[in-house]
Amino acid sequence: MVRGGLRVNSLRKLGELGIIRIMERSFGPSRRAVVGFGDDISGVRIANHQLAVLKTDMLVGSTDVPPGMTLRQAARKAVVANVSDLAAKGAKPYAGLVALGLPPTLTKRDVREIASGLSGGAKEYRFPLVGGDTNESRELVISIALFAMIDERKMILRSDARVGDILAVTGEFGSASAGLRALMDRRILPEKLPRPLSQAVYCPTAQLDLGLRIAATGAITSSIDSSDGLAWSLHEIAKMSNVGIRVEHVPVSAAARGFADSYGYNSLDLALYGGEEYHLIVTVNPRLFRAARKAASGKLRAIGIVTERSFGVRLSEGGRVSRIKMKGWEHFRR
Amino acid sequence: MVRGGLRVNSLRKLGELGIIRIMERSFGPSRRAVVGFGDDISGVRIANHQLAVLKTDMLVGSTDVPPGMTLRQAARKAVVANVSDLAAKGAKPYAGLVALGLPPTLTKRDVREIASGLSGGAKEYRFPLVGGDTNESRELVISIALFAMIDERKMILRSDARVGDILAVTGEFGSASAGLRALMDRRILPEKLPRPLSQAVYCPTAQLDLGLRIAATGAITSSIDSSDGLAWSLHEIAKMSNVGIRVEHVPVSAAARGFADSYGYNSLDLALYGGEEYHLIVTVNPRLFRAARKAASGKLRAIGIVTERSFGVRLSEGGRVSRIKMKGWEHFRR
Repeated sequence: MVRGGLRVNSLRKLGELGIIRIMERSFGPSRRAVVGFGDDISGVRIANHQLAVLKTDMLVGSTDVPPGMTLRQAARKAVVANVSDLAAKGAKPYAGLVALGLPPTLTKRDVREIASGLSGGAKEYRFPLVGGDTNESRELVISIALFAMIDERKMILRSDARVGDILAVTGEFGSASAGLRALMDRRILPEKLPRPLSQAVYCPTAQLDLGLRIAATGAITSSIDSSDGLAWSLHEIAKMSNVGIRVEHVPVSAAARGFADSYGYNSLDLALYGGEEYHLIVTVNPRLFRAARKAASGKLRAIGIVTERSFGVRLSEGGRVSRIKMKGWEHFRR
Repeated sequence: MVRGGLRVNSLRKLGELGIIRIMERSFGPSRRAVVGFGDDISGVRIANHQLAVLKTDMLVGSTDVPPGMTLRQAARKAVVANVSDLAAKGAKPYAGLVALGLPPTLTKRDVREIASGLSGGAKEYRFPLVGGDTNESRELVISIALFAMIDERKMILRSDARVGDILAVTGEFGSASAGLRALMDRRILPEKLPRPLSQAVYCPTAQLDLGLRIAATGAITSSIDSSDGLAWSLHEIAKMSNVGIRVEHVPVSAAARGFADSYGYNSLDLALYGGEEYHLIVTVNPRLFRAARKAASGKLRAIGIVTERSFGVRLSEGGRVSRIKMKGWEHFRR
């Protein structure tokens, strides 16, 4: 395909979803996979009611490491991205593996930094890194695989939201995408980035404790982590649960608002269509919402309601209703 | 460091072992890890006597894909490399994950080829691929993670070889390294490669059934797969088990011999110091050797004996004794 004189690359056209569809079709279904493609993690039954939770997420230097990020931070972020998906499912990481692709231009000190970021991340979320693989590659690649176990009856999927459930989130949105925008559009130098933005970009946190605590209440009907962006994640819940979602308020972080105001961005767009932010987006049984909120020490915020499928995914704020687009951060399409 | 006018890169100097040492030290020991760094797989205890076997191995386009290899073959080989390590431990793959780094220059057809190589490999070894992750990267990266379960008392380590055990292997050596030499030194074009060499390079096989069958006899005291080369693997067994090894015969494949004769290579060196070959190298309780050999349908071949540590790792053939060097295929040092 030719567009604007440039050959539009076929893999970019295909997109991450297109690639996943090809893989999924080729791999076929499996009776062992109780949770397969399409959720945050995969789950295979290993005993009566017991699932092994398996997760892999790869960090690639050229696409996942923003300007100004140290190798230690990149390695830690690779851990955070994997843990966040387990947090959304109420699963506690039990052990992890690391496969590394290291460019030969790295120094011994660089390798130590990567090791320290990995072990620091693993300690933060209290699981051991028990093995791995090391390779030479043209760019930095950190591929992490996590293993956990969970009672099948307690696993929280993306697909069990019910009409009338309360939509809730564990944080405010937009800081990571504001920070990334600032860096990518060269609005602000890495070292001048305001602290809340640099924190969101370089040192994100997975909501593991919060995720485990709210999962334990039995109040959560569906859950996803927000790493692909708020809008995208809402559409995933809606699609997988066959429901609609009415968002009544988008909690935008003060830092994202400040950046948007100063540099002429739309803060709502930053909050909705960002990504690389590791909050949990959950639907909650309304009768148990108070219990979940209490378990979260108040850090669970109701922002909308689950509706019939036909409603779609919409923002209904101050009397105005607008469509929330199925758009987000997606590899190969940026 | 400057050598021959070229700055010798510090990561190449450090080597894969140096990198692994840094990681291992940084990650620290874990009570959960019954088998940790230094063996073919990692093992964490998940119930009384039950281990979760975890394995990850990454294939990198620029270093692991020889000239002439198709994407389907590369993807299948990524599966084989992971399965082979489980085969050496007597563990049967239960489920797998795939993290992909795909260059944007790939086409949809390329992606289908990769998918088909992955699913073909998984079917060959009878386990489902249950999830994964897709990324854009500068070169092809296929990182696979496997999960299996095994009774802790049946797990075969690298470290339990005993003096007097029989050293045995499941195949002949040298074809893969002869094929790789032929390609890398541009002695033979990929399409002209004799069938046994091209088979060894492009379509290697993991000895899963054989590994499971001989493990079930209880005869195997230690085991390793030969993917890092015969010599290297022997030294690993010797080091981890604190023993010496006397090799009485190196089974060199006829194809490796033929290539060596025609092109002026040393066939014994090809067999000892190659790699990318997926045989099993095991030590066997001598009283149970016949049972193991029978379980392997004769495909287990005695090639030496386990000795005291002080003997070292030596080849003793036709009255001559020579040192087998601790040399093999190692990333960053080629």
